[in-house]
Amino acid sequence: MNFIDLRSDTVTKPTEKMRKAMYEAEVGDDVYGDDPTVNELESYAAELVGKEASLFVPSGTFGNQLSLFTHCTRGNEVILGEDCHILMHEVGAPAVIAGVQLRPIKSNKGEIDPLEIEKRIRGVDIHFPETGLICVENAHSNGRVISLENMREIYTIARNHNLPVHLDGARLFNAAAYLNVDPKEITQYCSSVMFCLSKGLCAPVGSMVAGSKDFIEKARKKRKIMGGGLRQAGILAAAGLVALKDMRKYLMEDHQNALYLGEELSKIPGININLDDININMVFFNMNDELYDMNNLAKEFYKKGIKINGPENGELRFVTNYWIKRKDIDYIINTMKEILNRK
Amino acid sequence: MNFIDLRSDTVTKPTEKMRKAMYEAEVGDDVYGDDPTVNELESYAAELVGKEASLFVPSGTFGNQLSLFTHCTRGNEVILGEDCHILMHEVGAPAVIAGVQLRPIKSNKGEIDPLEIEKRIRGVDIHFPETGLICVENAHSNGRVISLENMREIYTIARNHNLPVHLDGARLFNAAAYLNVDPKEITQYCSSVMFCLSKGLCAPVGSMVAGSKDFIEKARKKRKIMGGGLRQAGILAAAGLVALKDMRKYLMEDHQNALYLGEELSKIPGININLDDININMVFFNMNDELYDMNNLAKEFYKKGIKINGPENGELRFVTNYWIKRKDIDYIINTMKEILNRK
Amino acid sequence: MNFIDLRSDTVTKPTEKMRKAMYEAEVGDDVYGDDPTVNELESYAAELVGKEASLFVPSGTFGNQLSLFTHCTRGNEVILGEDCHILMHEVGAPAVIAGVQLRPIKSNKGEIDPLEIEKRIRGVDIHFPETGLICVENAHSNGRVISLENMREIYTIARNHNLPVHLDGARLFNAAAYLNVDPKEITQYCSSVMFCLSKGLCAPVGSMVAGSKDFIEKARKKRKIMGGGLRQAGILAAAGLVALKDMRKYLMEDHQNALYLGEELSKIPGININLDDININMVFFNMNDELYDMNNLAKEFYKKGIKINGPENGELRFVTNYWIKRKDIDYIINTMKEILNRK
Amino acid sequence: MNFIDLRSDTVTKPTEKMRKAMYEAEVGDDVYGDDPTVNELESYAAELVGKEASLFVPSGTFGNQLSLFTHCTRGNEVILGEDCHILMHEVGAPAVIAGVQLRPIKSNKGEIDPLEIEKRIRGVDIHFPETGLICVENAHSNGRVISLENMREIYTIARNHNLPVHLDGARLFNAAAYLNVDPKEITQYCSSVMFCLSKGLCAPVGSMVAGSKDFIEKARKKRKIMGGGLRQAGILAAAGLVALKDMRKYLMEDHQNALYLGEELSKIPGININLDDININMVFFNMNDELYDMNNLAKEFYKKGIKINGPENGELRFVTNYWIKRKDIDYIINTMKEILNRK
Repeated sequence: MNFIDLRSDTVTKPTEKMRKAMYEAEVGDDVYGDDPTVNELESYAAELVGKEASLFVPSGTFGNQLSLFTHCTRGNEVILGEDCHILMHEVGAPAVIAGVQLRPIKSNKGEIDPLEIEKRIRGVDIHFPETGLICVENAHSNGRVISLENMREIYTIARNHNLPVHLDGARLFNAAAYLNVDPKEITQYCSSVMFCLSKGLCAPVGSMVAGSKDFIEKARKKRKIMGGGLRQAGILAAAGLVALKDMRKYLMEDHQNALYLGEELSKIPGININLDDININMVFFNMNDELYDMNNLAKEFYKKGIKINGPENGELRFVTNYWIKRKDIDYIINTMKEILNRK
Repeated sequence: MNFIDLRSDTVTKPTEKMRKAMYEAEVGDDVYGDDPTVNELESYAAELVGKEASLFVPSGTFGNQLSLFTHCTRGNEVILGEDCHILMHEVGAPAVIAGVQLRPIKSNKGEIDPLEIEKRIRGVDIHFPETGLICVENAHSNGRVISLENMREIYTIARNHNLPVHLDGARLFNAAAYLNVDPKEITQYCSSVMFCLSKGLCAPVGSMVAGSKDFIEKARKKRKIMGGGLRQAGILAAAGLVALKDMRKYLMEDHQNALYLGEELSKIPGININLDDININMVFFNMNDELYDMNNLAKEFYKKGIKINGPENGELRFVTNYWIKRKDIDYIINTMKEILNRK
Repeated sequence: MNFIDLRSDTVTKPTEKMRKAMYEAEVGDDVYGDDPTVNELESYAAELVGKEASLFVPSGTFGNQLSLFTHCTRGNEVILGEDCHILMHEVGAPAVIAGVQLRPIKSNKGEIDPLEIEKRIRGVDIHFPETGLICVENAHSNGRVISLENMREIYTIARNHNLPVHLDGARLFNAAAYLNVDPKEITQYCSSVMFCLSKGLCAPVGSMVAGSKDFIEKARKKRKIMGGGLRQAGILAAAGLVALKDMRKYLMEDHQNALYLGEELSKIPGININLDDININMVFFNMNDELYDMNNLAKEFYKKGIKINGPENGELRFVTNYWIKRKDIDYIINTMKEILNRK
Repeated sequence: MNFIDLRSDTVTKPTEKMRKAMYEAEVGDDVYGDDPTVNELESYAAELVGKEASLFVPSGTFGNQLSLFTHCTRGNEVILGEDCHILMHEVGAPAVIAGVQLRPIKSNKGEIDPLEIEKRIRGVDIHFPETGLICVENAHSNGRVISLENMREIYTIARNHNLPVHLDGARLFNAAAYLNVDPKEITQYCSSVMFCLSKGLCAPVGSMVAGSKDFIEKARKKRKIMGGGLRQAGILAAAGLVALKDMRKYLMEDHQNALYLGEELSKIPGININLDDININMVFFNMNDELYDMNNLAKEFYKKGIKINGPENGELRFVTNYWIKRKDIDYIINTMKEILNRK
């Protein structure tokens, strides 16, 4: 059975063009710097986000952790939002890889108040760790896009205190699509950025870290410590180039599909959605208990050829992607209605 | 000049009785378990807080970090209040020594909502670190005493989830004095506790970690890794025994002096104090800008034989201790008035 | 120019069959366990080395470090040979990722004396770290194959002391080819093994870690901490399956080519080679100073279409691989003679 | 019973003069830099070993680990002798506190060949950790004193490579006494040195780390991370000052007593001692099996009022100290003879 997969955009499979590019990719040993396709990707990706250099890494978590490891000295403190991916979904890695202390701040749907950040930047005192980094996430894994204004304010404060800003841009191009700006408009407000080639862009494996030449040079060495020095990575880079060049334009469709899905679901009494929160390809919602027990939904949907995750913190999340078309959305909506009616 | 020192209760000097006890202390090599005075202290301290065993450590920070290191596996997550000493004033050590990720919660004057804790205990998911420990602090370094009810609720939740609770009890006996309970009433709600022999109790150096026999045995080995295996520590333990046996009864005086100091200061127009926050020996306050520039106060007081710290986060903190008597408090108040009038 | 590349077998490019397999690979999200090709590879690889389970990882260094991280508790001591890859060529990662102390032993061409290992296994003492793991490497990165007898003796000692043995088998199948045994004959003497799909087997990216089910389950979680949780890794796994199924049989040719190359070079007066050390696809040698300055050779060879590395510790290393055929060996030998004659 | 304690010089108790000094010590809060006795000790100790500054730490292990932590960046490699205290008896702390990789070298009775060190200093290569530090130990915990010539050669190599040298001088003054030189003659060949106030010098607790001003400033902060920021440490510093000023002159007696003890023991047939190895206050020896089972000796000696440790690596170690006088040595020798005869 060919499932409709709403669990995450991480499930996206490569396109035919990517497969062909991988098939034909010119490769070399990237630890020696000899892989022409990796080199092309790293140079293209840097240019795309307006940074001096970039580096291919095996995953988004790898890229974020490598960035913390490269920016910070062990024992430093990192200021970030309490609901961000780095804190919530990276297995406690900041305490293991970089050896840094997280200093989370209350987040307003992903936005963190620049003044709250500034209050937490450490002064000089023998009892204090040194603040080493500020992290922001855009688009946020809660489905929201952070405003350029918020990013600009945070970056300004960081610069005033001589601190770097790392952007977890796993879905950077979703944010750019939503804001309808060049990605550089966003990345101008960070010192380093990680963005994924997989997820909505459909490459099978890999993410990029971009920043200054000096930063990327240091990161290259630390990537090796973390076991991320790959050999003929040009195979993956070839798909990555297709992802960056061809696939960004489809993200807006994913967003529109998500919004349509959200709107239709919101019409069902007992389903609660904040439509304003649908910025990208994610629909978060919950159901009144009397309507339906959310814990059963995954099983019922699966029977109908739709994969979803169970609820997390009382909410369900449906994620659209390139392989889910408008007719699939209609099928999802009808299936939902059918299940609820049957009850 | 014999200064009145309001900077912290860490400045307390040993009493004559302590000096004599140290002079006469029977000692041995504690790494071999041969120091009779250390052994007596460890057994007395364990009994005092109702735990199976205890361990002498060189400082409060050492004891807290050793407890994290002993309870947790590297990469674990530790739930604690956002304003607690472990996060705020221990130099980022949790990321270095234990290698754990902190998960701070909004604190209401030091109390953290048990339900907020429960929400943050991690379930099983490949993206999640394991929750390894919950930390509470009582008396809190913000000067407040946490209610037994709050501690009981947190401990209950922790037990339901099979999690240990560590109590940062640097000022445990201040809390017990304020609540007018046996210290065991407090420590019944924790798996391990660190408490200081110095601070209000006036011993020159040292803190205790108490817990189960198994926990203390593991901690003894990890204390050695951290360089805390001392030799003839009985010298310090002798003072510690005096601290625990004789000095706890004076803490209530420190609290009364703090309250009196707070009340008198609060009568001065332009000085803002929340008298309800004076639970132990600490008075936090600020001054209206038009009244006086707080940044100048330390210098002025110093000329008058009084040591204070400069403001932190817009607040001044005056801490009373055993060596500051009621007449000193009157002198402080008068000095304050004099300085403000002169302006 | 189509170079003959003698720098390392890491430079091998994928075969046409691999490219086709990648092109056609069925994939899924491996973090969800949904990638059928990864699942097939993990099951095939486990079977091949006689272990319960296996795990795909991005690189050999990643796999070795993940194994240390999974076997050991932070602060443990790991006994290994002083010239092994884990100590020499993995950027100090054991102190960063697993947080373990290395305890190297003199190696006799890669073999370490089991009695020397046993002497270093720690007893119980408060001054001692706990011994957590013994590592062996076969084939060794010095080009030698360790005898089954040596591996058996080490494994027996380890079991007597309840210690695991990890085998760095980056070139496991080279060792099996040289010994003319089933790989299981080697891996029976280890608790876990890492082996590479790249290098002589020509897959573009990836290595496997194999061991008990319990070990692999823990390693899967720690792989995520290290950023090695990939998504549609089936692309790489498809090439890996071809590597394991089709390419092992060509390793013997690489060995024969290396031996032939070594024999011919050894006939040139002033070139010093120990032919007994040519077990697999590596030829180590040096040249008398009066014959030629080894530091110039890379540049001269490059002009002739041959890539080599400069000398390390006074030795040159030539590595054969699948893409270097007998006629290329002849060309290399002739080129060498030509350069030396010209001088 | 008043035991003669030969287990280690760590068992030494403070002298009457030390006890008096501690009783009278002027103290303050050393975290604020306010303890006059600590300040005096730190300044005296720095001067004594010819360094710009020094720092009081709770133990020798603490001081060594703090030095590694301060000199090195995490992931660095540290070159040292395979039998040194830092590797053998500090619980694997280098992998935990500093996060560094040890690179041990064969030691010839504590001396390491400067050329072997130089061979191990890492060049620039993406596979290599950076060499961060060289450690030497003098007097060595094996009882031998390292020659000034060896230290000078190592220091020269280190400087040529821009590397610091840390001296584990737990028994620095024993080395100086043996060599009959000013301690500065030894410490001129290191960037930092740790030496103990306890052990042969009889202070109850504490060691010093000395080095450049910049180094000590950084170490002061890292001492706080490790929990070594003490408060009224002047109590301990007072004893430390007596140790450094008064007690160094008695070390030669300990050495002479050890040599006398060794000579007398060596006359007993079946006891094997290398008298050349008795440089300081330690006598290592073993007994032929037919003479006596060494494992029983501790129990027998204990009955006679003498404490010794059991054999380690087939050797017994007797350590003399200030509290063991010539008549005690005679008693030990006679007791030994009596036990052996009785058998």
